[in-house]
Formats: sequence, structure tokens, C-alpha cells
Amino acid sequence: MQVYLDNNATTRTAPEVVEAMLPYFTEVYGNASSFHQFGQRAAKGMGSARQDAADFLGVTAEEIVFTGSGSESDNYFLKGVAARAGAGHIITSAIEHPAILRTARFLAQNGFQLTELPVDGQGTVSPDDLRGTLRPDTILVSVMHANNEVGTIQDMAALGAVCREAGVPFHTDAVQAVGKLPINLRELPVDYLSASAHKLHGPKGIGLAYLRRGSKAPFNLIHGGHHERRRRASTENVPGIVGFGKAVQLAPEEDYHRERLLRLRAKLEEGISDIPEITILAREAERLPNTSNVLFHRLEGESIVMSLDFEGIAVSTGSACSSGSLEPSHVILALGYDHAHAQGSIRFSLSRYTTEEEIDYTLEKLPPIIHRLRNISAL
Amino acid sequence: MQVYLDNNATTRTAPEVVEAMLPYFTEVYGNASSFHQFGQRAAKGMGSARQDAADFLGVTAEEIVFTGSGSESDNYFLKGVAARAGAGHIITSAIEHPAILRTARFLAQNGFQLTELPVDGQGTVSPDDLRGTLRPDTILVSVMHANNEVGTIQDMAALGAVCREAGVPFHTDAVQAVGKLPINLRELPVDYLSASAHKLHGPKGIGLAYLRRGSKAPFNLIHGGHHERRRRASTENVPGIVGFGKAVQLAPEEDYHRERLLRLRAKLEEGISDIPEITILAREAERLPNTSNVLFHRLEGESIVMSLDFEGIAVSTGSACSSGSLEPSHVILALGYDHAHAQGSIRFSLSRYTTEEEIDYTLEKLPPIIHRLRNISAL
Repeated sequence: MQVYLDNNATTRTAPEVVEAMLPYFTEVYGNASSFHQFGQRAAKGMGSARQDAADFLGVTAEEIVFTGSGSESDNYFLKGVAARAGAGHIITSAIEHPAILRTARFLAQNGFQLTELPVDGQGTVSPDDLRGTLRPDTILVSVMHANNEVGTIQDMAALGAVCREAGVPFHTDAVQAVGKLPINLRELPVDYLSASAHKLHGPKGIGLAYLRRGSKAPFNLIHGGHHERRRRASTENVPGIVGFGKAVQLAPEEDYHRERLLRLRAKLEEGISDIPEITILAREAERLPNTSNVLFHRLEGESIVMSLDFEGIAVSTGSACSSGSLEPSHVILALGYDHAHAQGSIRFSLSRYTTEEEIDYTLEKLPPIIHRLRNISAL
Repeated sequence: MQVYLDNNATTRTAPEVVEAMLPYFTEVYGNASSFHQFGQRAAKGMGSARQDAADFLGVTAEEIVFTGSGSESDNYFLKGVAARAGAGHIITSAIEHPAILRTARFLAQNGFQLTELPVDGQGTVSPDDLRGTLRPDTILVSVMHANNEVGTIQDMAALGAVCREAGVPFHTDAVQAVGKLPINLRELPVDYLSASAHKLHGPKGIGLAYLRRGSKAPFNLIHGGHHERRRRASTENVPGIVGFGKAVQLAPEEDYHRERLLRLRAKLEEGISDIPEITILAREAERLPNTSNVLFHRLEGESIVMSLDFEGIAVSTGSACSSGSLEPSHVILALGYDHAHAQGSIRFSLSRYTTEEEIDYTLEKLPPIIHRLRNISAL
């Protein structure tokens, strides 16, 4: 049996998405910036996908810029706001994705000031902490909507309100939130937002940057042609954009999927709770309904990943973007766990394609693996 | 009849390319940075495509970084070299693509010095001019391999030799050259190169950056995860990379295609030569075999594009990336033509899919259109 429980790393592209993209490769293949019919037909498909994305987020099509990835969107906002300001103070959190954290630290090495807000044991950023950290020279606050490793959802309304009060632009990396949570940007006090299609069953290689109307446009990350209302040069990735549009169309009617995912995750966590010496992270927080991160004490995550992989079950030790580093997760350390504990973390992330049978299979294979690995490690 | 003669703007994705990509959407959909089998199968497809791209360019797989577009690659090299140096002098040419020219000018507005080398009437950059412009503080030379508008091919060996002599890194925007010309980077003195899949019947949204082994890596444009040997963060666009690999596999055995394209273009230009008051640009230069740029005196290019479009024939007035600006082409001005003449330019760009029948059809429709438009404009 093949069980894919690593949907926060990436998702299966929905067959409906692929079907929507296909004509834009070989039939409607024009450059969307070209005046002729080949170009205008491509522009039409792109425009309709842009409208779908805008509708989904509760914004207008003019506020959407398509990029090459969520990481590009994050870099665009951080570097673009910094370049425009020239100097100043940036606030982010200790549990951001590397696309935010490493970018912010790069800026800190190049003359900007940086504050990384701590989180509590559930991974929550405190709006009061944020208020206390704001300075007159703060140029940007960036706090992720939902954490990729443990699933903690931040109080966007409260954090955004603090920023608005201070007149500081508020960015959120919503790569893990978009498609998993209802997001209405008409109501949220968010100025800039990053998202990525491949986290919600869209294709890889296409990201989204939302800029609230009236917000200052960051300096471009990619200069060149006049694409995307002059905010991001590059021949538009029409099939990718069309795929993004289809992915948001398919994105869950939240109540239905949320209930189903919550039920499957509850079953998973209940089963795992029978295993001794485990901690389910951020369990008290408002969490993404598809995400469960478990510390298996006295074990290293890598060996659990490999043992489960041998049984056809795909999970991860944390962010796929951090793979290759054997450092323990900065997120789990920020939650207050020590190095030894943090090394035993396993992230299970479900999707609309996850079945109850797959959860049953996982709960059949996991306990003996943990038992065996602990026996070995005790030797 | 539908005739697509705008292949320098973008090309039809080859059906073989789409077929190669398809399994990577819905079957081999893992994150190529994940340790488990889903990830490793994706990494395998990506690795094999990287090797194909490397073989095609005569380099090693480790020297290839995949990006989101040719424009991103251009920005990566210019901004990344500039950021690493902190200050200095950049040399480029007056006929570069906007992804180079606007990026270089952005850097010039932010403290860097910039020289834009002139070209002769055929669009050629002189190696002697380059030598005369080099300064002790020159940090980068960037000259495009083949021009997108008029097709002029630069003498890469001579230009690169001048740079090497001076110890200055040499970058080339080869977006229009890769797939249309034989390029062997083992022999060419080029340190950095940009390319894009969608110009050679690959998918949109995937670019390539070549960094010669031993060259200094520019600062990252996109910080974050450890993808692409830490040079470009973002979940790898596996289907796009696989498509790029397939596109280079299909890329013409040059001699066969070159001969065919040269024959079709000769027929086109011969036919157009029967129309009075025209100039075929860069005709004396070594040119891309698929490109023909014609000035129709006393006319505006836009009206020709629209009239041909009405007959199902897609051409352009220049770069699709400059569409929307009604400025005359900076390339044609740099060749020495005045504004009035430059406005009447039409670029015909052929591909391996162009048929003789399509050229015949174009030669049937074009002359009466020019005649009619000139009659109107004379009123």
C-alpha cells in the first residue's frame, strides 16, 4: 500500500487541474503579452484564472501578481519592501518558513535590523509581544498564517490590527493556509500575502503575491518586461496560472473537508496516543485540520521516516525545504523543546485524498516500528 | 488558416514534452527534496532532466541551476553579482532584452556604474569596444548571445576572450540562442548563462542558470530552503524541469533544421523583397536562422500586426515583453534607424513546426495588406 501523508511538503496535482492546463501547452500556447489572437486567447485563460484566485481570497484581480513560487513571493515582499525603504527594522517570528527567516536574516546581515518574535509552547505569536516590539523605524511585519510543521494558526486579525494601528505594513506567508482555511482578505487587515499552488493540489512552479490596493508596491524582485502590471517580469506561465485557478476552484468547501480531515486526524492521534512516550505538538492551539506533529521520545525522526517509507508510508521530519540539514527543527526548538526531543519529531499531513483505510494502515505499521527502533536504540 | 510566426515570443510546447511531464503531476508528485520514495522518484526524474540539459550545453549537471524563467536567471546574475560586489561597474549592450537592460538600469539608479555598449548597423557588438570600456572596477559583462528582435548573433568567443583576459566574469543571456544554435560551453569562455524552456518548445515557467565550475556564485535572488545546491530556494518544479530536459532532447540536430529554416526564411525574405520600400534588418550579420525583421517604410507595425492577425497570421512588432509600451524598439534605434522607420518593424520568427505552405500563405496575404495600409496612410 502507498500512503502519502506528506501533503504539507507538496500535494498531488488534482487530475482536474492537469486537464484544465493541458490545452495551454499545445493549443493555446501564445504569449499572453502578444497582441495577436494566439496571445489574446492565452491572456483570456489567464485572466479568468486570476479572477478565480481573486474571488477565492475575497480580493480583486488587480491585487494579484503571479510569481514562480511561494518562496519567490516571500522574497519579493521582504527584499522589495527593504529595498524601497533603504534601511529600517523588520519584525518576523521565530517559527517562519526558511523563505522568510533566511531572507530576513540575509537582510539583517546587510544593514537592516531584525526582531524574531518568540512563540509560546503551542506555537502562538502574541499580539502584545508584537506591539511591544514595534519601533518608529519598523518597515514591515511578517508573520506566517499557519505553520508548516506543527500547524499552529495565528490570530491574523489581532496581529494585523496591531500593525494597522502603528501604520506598519503587514505581510503573511499563507502558503500552508490557502486552501486549508477559509481566508477572506476583504476582512483581514493583511497588506501583503504569499501563496503557492502546489500546496493545494495545483502545479509546482507557480506562486501568488497579493498586494492590497493602496499598499506601497515593493521594488521588483525580477525586473524586465511589463508583465503582471509591471510588478514581476517574465513571460507569464499560462498553464501554471490556469492550474492555480482550477486548484482554488476545487479547494475544499471548508466545512465538509474540515470535518472529514479533523475526524481522520483525530483517529490518527488517538491511535498514536496508545504509543508510550510521545507528545503531540501544538495540540491545544488552533491548528491546520490536516496537520499532526508528534515527538517520539528517545528516537531520531530520520529512522522513523525510513522505516515507514519501507512500508510505503510517506511522512517527514519537518519541512522538506530543510531536508539535507540534520539540524533539529527551529520550529520545535522555538516551542520550547530541547535538541534531544526535537530530533524525534514526525509530521503527518493529510489531504482531501487521504482515506480512512490509509490511516488504519498507518496505525497498524507505526507502533511496532517505534517499538523496534526503541529496542535498537536501547541496546 | 492559422500561421504562428511569433516563435521568438514563445513556442508551442512539443507534445512529446507534455507527455514526458504528465506523470510528474499526478503520479510522481512528491517533493524532490523529500527523503521518502515519493520524493526520491521525483528527484530521479529531475536529475535525469538536469543531466540532459547539462549534456546539451556541454557542461556538468552540478553547473546547472533551474529557475522560474529566463528573466529570473538574468536578474539572478546581475543583481546577485552586484550584491556580492557591493559596488562597481557593469557593462552590457544597447540591444539587450529588457530583463537585462532594465535590471542593469535599476542597479545604475542604486549606486552602480553602467556602460551600454553600442552596436553597428547589423546589431553587432565590437570586442574592441568592449576592451576599451573595461575598467579596474568592472564587476560583470553581460552581452546577449543572439538578439530576440533582429536575430544578430554575437561573437561569444571573442567577447568572452576579452573578459577572460581582464579577469572579469562574462554573462550571456542566451534565451534566444539555446535550441536554435549549437552551443558548447566547454569551449566558449562564458562564466554565466541564462536560458528558458519555452523558447525551445519546452513549458513556460522554467528557466535555467548556468554557473561555470569555479566561478563565484552570485548572492541568491531567492533565499529560503536548500534547493538547487542552495542557490535558488523554492520547491523544485519537477514537471517543468522534466519538460526542459525533454525539450533539449528534441532540440534540433542543428544542421538539418538550420538548413530547413534557412530555406523557409530565404523564401519569405525573397517574397517580401518584392514589396517596395522595405528594409530587412541585420541581413549582413550572422543571424538566428529562424528570425527575420523587416522595416516597412511609412507604416506603423501595429496596424500590420492587426491586419495579419485578421488573416490568422501571428507576427509581432518586436519583443512581446515590450508590448504595451508604444515606444519604438530600442534595438532598432540602436541599429541606427530613426523613430519613424523603427515604428514600421515586423518580426517574423519561424520554428520547426513552420511549413512551406504557411510561408506561401503569408506571402499571399502580406503584399496586399501593405499596399492597402499605405494607401490609407497616404490619404
